[in-house]
Amino acid sequence: MPLLPPTPTLIAHLAAIVGPGHALTTSADQAAYLTEWRGLYTGRTLLVLRPGSTAEVSAILSACHEARVGVVPQGGNTGLVGGQIPFETGREIVVSLARLNRIRHVDPHGRHMTAEAGVTLASVQAEADRHGQFFPLSLASEGTCQIGGNLATNAGGLNVLAYGNAREQVSGLEVVLADGRVWDGLRALKKDNTGYDLRDLFIGSEGTLGIITAAVLKLRPRPAERYSAFLAVADLDAALAVFKRAEAKAGSRLTAFEFLSAFALRVVLAHVAGTRAPFGASYPWYLLLEVSAPEADGSGASLLEELLTALADDGLILKAVLPQTEAGRAAVWRLREELSDAQRHEGGSIKHDVSVPVEQIAEFIRRADSLVEQICPGARPCAFGHFGDGNIHYNVTQPAGMEKAAYLALWGMMNEAIHTLIAEMGGSISAEHGIGRLKRAELARFRSKVELDLMRALKAALDPRGILNPGKVIDVGADGPQPPSI
Amino acid sequence: MPLLPPTPTLIAHLAAIVGPGHALTTSADQAAYLTEWRGLYTGRTLLVLRPGSTAEVSAILSACHEARVGVVPQGGNTGLVGGQIPFETGREIVVSLARLNRIRHVDPHGRHMTAEAGVTLASVQAEADRHGQFFPLSLASEGTCQIGGNLATNAGGLNVLAYGNAREQVSGLEVVLADGRVWDGLRALKKDNTGYDLRDLFIGSEGTLGIITAAVLKLRPRPAERYSAFLAVADLDAALAVFKRAEAKAGSRLTAFEFLSAFALRVVLAHVAGTRAPFGASYPWYLLLEVSAPEADGSGASLLEELLTALADDGLILKAVLPQTEAGRAAVWRLREELSDAQRHEGGSIKHDVSVPVEQIAEFIRRADSLVEQICPGARPCAFGHFGDGNIHYNVTQPAGMEKAAYLALWGMMNEAIHTLIAEMGGSISAEHGIGRLKRAELARFRSKVELDLMRALKAALDPRGILNPGKVIDVGADGPQPPSI
Repeated sequence: MPLLPPTPTLIAHLAAIVGPGHALTTSADQAAYLTEWRGLYTGRTLLVLRPGSTAEVSAILSACHEARVGVVPQGGNTGLVGGQIPFETGREIVVSLARLNRIRHVDPHGRHMTAEAGVTLASVQAEADRHGQFFPLSLASEGTCQIGGNLATNAGGLNVLAYGNAREQVSGLEVVLADGRVWDGLRALKKDNTGYDLRDLFIGSEGTLGIITAAVLKLRPRPAERYSAFLAVADLDAALAVFKRAEAKAGSRLTAFEFLSAFALRVVLAHVAGTRAPFGASYPWYLLLEVSAPEADGSGASLLEELLTALADDGLILKAVLPQTEAGRAAVWRLREELSDAQRHEGGSIKHDVSVPVEQIAEFIRRADSLVEQICPGARPCAFGHFGDGNIHYNVTQPAGMEKAAYLALWGMMNEAIHTLIAEMGGSISAEHGIGRLKRAELARFRSKVELDLMRALKAALDPRGILNPGKVIDVGADGPQPPSI
Repeated sequence: MPLLPPTPTLIAHLAAIVGPGHALTTSADQAAYLTEWRGLYTGRTLLVLRPGSTAEVSAILSACHEARVGVVPQGGNTGLVGGQIPFETGREIVVSLARLNRIRHVDPHGRHMTAEAGVTLASVQAEADRHGQFFPLSLASEGTCQIGGNLATNAGGLNVLAYGNAREQVSGLEVVLADGRVWDGLRALKKDNTGYDLRDLFIGSEGTLGIITAAVLKLRPRPAERYSAFLAVADLDAALAVFKRAEAKAGSRLTAFEFLSAFALRVVLAHVAGTRAPFGASYPWYLLLEVSAPEADGSGASLLEELLTALADDGLILKAVLPQTEAGRAAVWRLREELSDAQRHEGGSIKHDVSVPVEQIAEFIRRADSLVEQICPGARPCAFGHFGDGNIHYNVTQPAGMEKAAYLALWGMMNEAIHTLIAEMGGSISAEHGIGRLKRAELARFRSKVELDLMRALKAALDPRGILNPGKVIDVGADGPQPPSI
């Protein structure tokens, strides 16, 4: 039985659940919830709900389950694959978790925090810091994205190398199930081996198996010192050698190892106010690494200095900057963090969020660049990302002067070529951004029938009517058209 | 429709799949597969199969699915909750993974190894070491237990503090599903955000959702140096203070933090040949901690020495031994590792594998000791375990001179008291040993209906006929009687 559009009676019932002012029905009120921030998708809906509690989320899902109406959960609306936007049919309702924004509990001794889904990532970080602790998840969108969305999408970001993805930052969840039942799995234990791993099934399921309403987050010891270095290297083989040496020397104190191409740095410097070139000349590739130390005893600084001296002696790095102030550190990090946004100033960008084993990054980039040049001569690969994780944001900027729409029409063809290469190399077509709407067809193309059938079986088990984020990730409960090739 | 006993035709078909010598039908041949090593359960079966490949496992499950016959997968038969033993009805067949014992691939640069389920944990460790790498999972049974069983049960052990449970050591799996289909999820990527987390669903599901036949294991940089210290403290408050200081000082270099009671140490010294008391006197509690360093530069030793000096200055430790040789290190670790086995020499032991937040260990032990004294005056708590994980092996040895059977008759009553306390304190009734058969009723008692229903839904989705390890973990597909209270 297919999903149905919400009736006026259901809309009135849902509006009553959240109360006056929290059921948005006008275009003006809904606009912020319906457009993907890069403009890839604009959805339609009869109703955006802003519940204020888990009980209200439960009542909403109970009613929508009964009525067979699709529900699109939304956090900060910063997702990059369209998972948070309803389809254009207007048959789904949107549930924003933004008002579930309380931090319920912080235990600095036990090192955990219970936060509701709508707390922004920056607020989680700040609250941890206020208690002398550290929450390592860090993304460019951290001021806007919400922890519930971070967990639903298993977000990655800048500190995955040492601390892991969003999944690794959680010890327990509270989840509202498709039919409105609430699973209270808010546990704060380091070890608990009692039955199936429900937590990790909901994390990364992009709102298709349940709606995360709160989480017990793990806090870490706050590093007493963090030192960064911005380096220039001749090629990606040198980058790999630097990474291996840094890892061997620093172990888990190596908390970030990012890379960006010469073109990527040029894009940031050209378009982001207040950025400054770190060196007088341009080099083929740049690395940004960070070392953290648990104690403020200067050991982090000496470790980094010893490492850089050895690397320079062996001719592996061409140039290095070691900021000595917090402002200097922030300045080099901005060169990396502003990249996601800066690219749009160069016109159309066809994006790939891929991963390969770290040893194969150089080979991937070489082969991908060659494919791009065949498909669109003059297109400019703007490669950057989390080198230490093998995660490459292989974004390809249009040739200078080309018409943007004509370039973006190549999206499907370029995706296919790059993702086929990734599949050949045993990599992932979505290293950290998830599947959502944008990559659903790609997932179906690159995963085995057994794997897709397993996912469909899990979806059917936890959301038998297919009301949760229909048509996202997999094709169960799809209420909208096939995702476009853009 | 219930499960059925295997027919002679099916038995002949299954025997043909594995070939001569690998289908065991006599009591003598089967004995090693049917008895839980502590003697808690003795199962019956018409057939123990020893397949030699994933394809053979697939053919076996395909046939058993078709015939609705229950299958009990078994690794090294070292499990502590009876998950690996068939019920006494004799209606289930046993599938030993022991012959899937090849290491398919080692990539020391990419730091991963693909091993089949039947490779022993010790062999995985040795293979990693041979390539200059480190596989951190470490258990008392590592010479016998198999990696497939470690993953199916999400084993814990001695290095969880720094490296995590078995779950954290895996990047990909190969799993034979209930109907014989094979899921090839053998991925070696650090980041891969494509769809539901199937891997973590199979890990820890104790063979009830699929049979793990191979895994891509993560390897770690081999610590260049490891230093251990065996300490005496006055009470568990001091133990907590020592742990907090060690964690702050050493961060992720603190790779183990174990504890044992005065009684536990006495048990080991009394019954294990070749052990020696570390100190001239007895103290209330002992700690065993380990610091690892990535480089052989003496930094690990100096870190540990500085830590111990500071702890002694502050009166937190009463006595300390720092072995300076590998033999000395092994000797203090034996005092901890032999404990599981040594207890049986003191008669009956009623066991609990529980966890609480680390700050609450002292309170738990105090309250648990009081409950035990009420239930069985003179019973001797033998508490030890993974302090840093909050994981207490709260095993209670019978009063001296009491009849063993009379003492073990208290198992259910004592479990109930201790587990009720654990539930009150927000802890776990199975920190690392899993549920299996022994704790199925306990799980049902302490988990919410929603959570049990979620588990049943997943079981039904992945094993609709309930043939995989029937009656273990949850009550779906139960082919045998309710687990006994022992």
